[in-house]
Amino acid sequence: MALLPIEIEILRHAKRVDAVLEELAPRDGPPFLAEPAWYHLDTGGKRIRPALCLLACEALGGDSEKALHFAAAVELLHNMLLVHDDIEDGDAVRRNKPTVWRAYGLANAINVGDYIFACAFRAVMASPLPEGVRMRLLDVFLATCERTIEGQALDINARGNARFTVEDYLRMAERKTGRYLVLGMVGGAIIADAPEVTLQCLQNLGDSLGPAFQVRDDLIDLTTGKGRGVRGSDIAEGKASILYAHALAQSSPAESERLLEIMKKPREETTEADVAWVLGLYERCGSIRFAEEAAEKLIGDAQRALDYLPAEQQPIFRRIVSYIAERTS
Amino acid sequence: MALLPIEIEILRHAKRVDAVLEELAPRDGPPFLAEPAWYHLDTGGKRIRPALCLLACEALGGDSEKALHFAAAVELLHNMLLVHDDIEDGDAVRRNKPTVWRAYGLANAINVGDYIFACAFRAVMASPLPEGVRMRLLDVFLATCERTIEGQALDINARGNARFTVEDYLRMAERKTGRYLVLGMVGGAIIADAPEVTLQCLQNLGDSLGPAFQVRDDLIDLTTGKGRGVRGSDIAEGKASILYAHALAQSSPAESERLLEIMKKPREETTEADVAWVLGLYERCGSIRFAEEAAEKLIGDAQRALDYLPAEQQPIFRRIVSYIAERTS
Repeated sequence: MALLPIEIEILRHAKRVDAVLEELAPRDGPPFLAEPAWYHLDTGGKRIRPALCLLACEALGGDSEKALHFAAAVELLHNMLLVHDDIEDGDAVRRNKPTVWRAYGLANAINVGDYIFACAFRAVMASPLPEGVRMRLLDVFLATCERTIEGQALDINARGNARFTVEDYLRMAERKTGRYLVLGMVGGAIIADAPEVTLQCLQNLGDSLGPAFQVRDDLIDLTTGKGRGVRGSDIAEGKASILYAHALAQSSPAESERLLEIMKKPREETTEADVAWVLGLYERCGSIRFAEEAAEKLIGDAQRALDYLPAEQQPIFRRIVSYIAERTS
Repeated sequence: MALLPIEIEILRHAKRVDAVLEELAPRDGPPFLAEPAWYHLDTGGKRIRPALCLLACEALGGDSEKALHFAAAVELLHNMLLVHDDIEDGDAVRRNKPTVWRAYGLANAINVGDYIFACAFRAVMASPLPEGVRMRLLDVFLATCERTIEGQALDINARGNARFTVEDYLRMAERKTGRYLVLGMVGGAIIADAPEVTLQCLQNLGDSLGPAFQVRDDLIDLTTGKGRGVRGSDIAEGKASILYAHALAQSSPAESERLLEIMKKPREETTEADVAWVLGLYERCGSIRFAEEAAEKLIGDAQRALDYLPAEQQPIFRRIVSYIAERTS
């Protein structure tokens, strides 16, 4: 099994998650909740986060059957955050389908997010594990929710902030994505009864890999877009990306004023010319190169965080890091 | 102490809650979260739900010091639901102040609700109680969240439904408010190590008292309004009240068509004449009298649910029921 490419292992584990998801949030569940929840869950997420939970649990000598509920909880949390984020960001399209709020209205979308959130907690609690382990899982799950929500608050309020710096960006990204990206692996490690040093090491991994993931996500928006059909949608949305933070500091006062003006415009008023001008500014300021280098550095930090793992456990986690790094590039 | 009016006891307990709230969701907590959360928490809620938790715990022989965290959790859940409900209902004013989404914007309001939700779970988990008791509390807390969200889904989607019946209304109200209204008392009973029959009895109490509370709330909207400055705001909002359900069945086809039309109008297009016409229809159909009788009946059912408590515990819970029934009338 160790010889198989990491993609195949992830795929194999990802396939195990849907059955548990359907048990925890049944397709024929509560009216006006189960259907929109599955409308979203079916939009083609690859179940990578839960797969990493199962993979980490096995890699650390645990029984991944016992981690299935936690894996599902991580996937549910991920989807709950996407449902609410899409409203908060005003995104109308995700994975080429109307977002939940567009398809079912604002009121239902908020409530469906709350429903999936509750399902996620239920999933953790329903784990076939001793009470003490479930409490530890709940604790790390909740701590991750708290940090992610804190990061989202920094993100929302960074928009249109003229003094937003690269340091602000990294702090925001670390809060928003750090622990959240590795939550499955940390839970898998707890279920495998891994030592404290392993848990700490995986959390440190997240604190670099999460921001790396976020920076790569910012860069993807400049090249292929994000499945929303358009390049530069972060600019139209006014999202506080690393490119924005960098260009703000590197451009002339007149340029940064215009940049700010475009970022503050409501999405529907942002013209193609505005987006093109900002893309040009990012080029001129070296912001794209800067972001690429920042991502490289963060991925290096992530790899170094793994040095503290026992030697025999390092290869699998290094492959996971490379996989995450490559798939977002 | 038994001779003191129930109001004084509730007030005494309510005062104990704020210190724990400030510990669990500090005023100087995360940026862009703590401030709007406290903007809402400070809007003058009377902390009745948490007070009932402490009162029930003591009445059943428990140490209410140990119930303070759960009491705070109930108050946090209540406030989280209000923050999200105000968005879902499009309510701009609560307790004579702009609602969170009006004051801080939609994105922050959704995220702040999620934050308060997480704080509520944290509060339950932080209870100074053995692991097994905390697990039981988490279980009942989560089950109540799930039911309340289910009820809210029925509520949202009942709006503008031409076939909405009184039975649909009662099912919705029972889901939305039943367990949620007595959650504090049930938690207090668990902490007091009350027998299963007591827990069941308090939950049954909620299944009648919750809908009674909701019906009274519908009636208040027709008389004094709900602190939103206007009478009949449920009509402008298109809320699926018991009056709406009753009038829909009792009116002529032409009348029910006009009723539906008015309820479906966006709030800002509903005229004063529309509201006056609906109020007149409710009078003509006997819907107001019907709602008053329904509330009486439900309160009677609630009192009867208490017959299964040990005789010496009945008086205090009967006073609580009367208190809740009176304060909403």
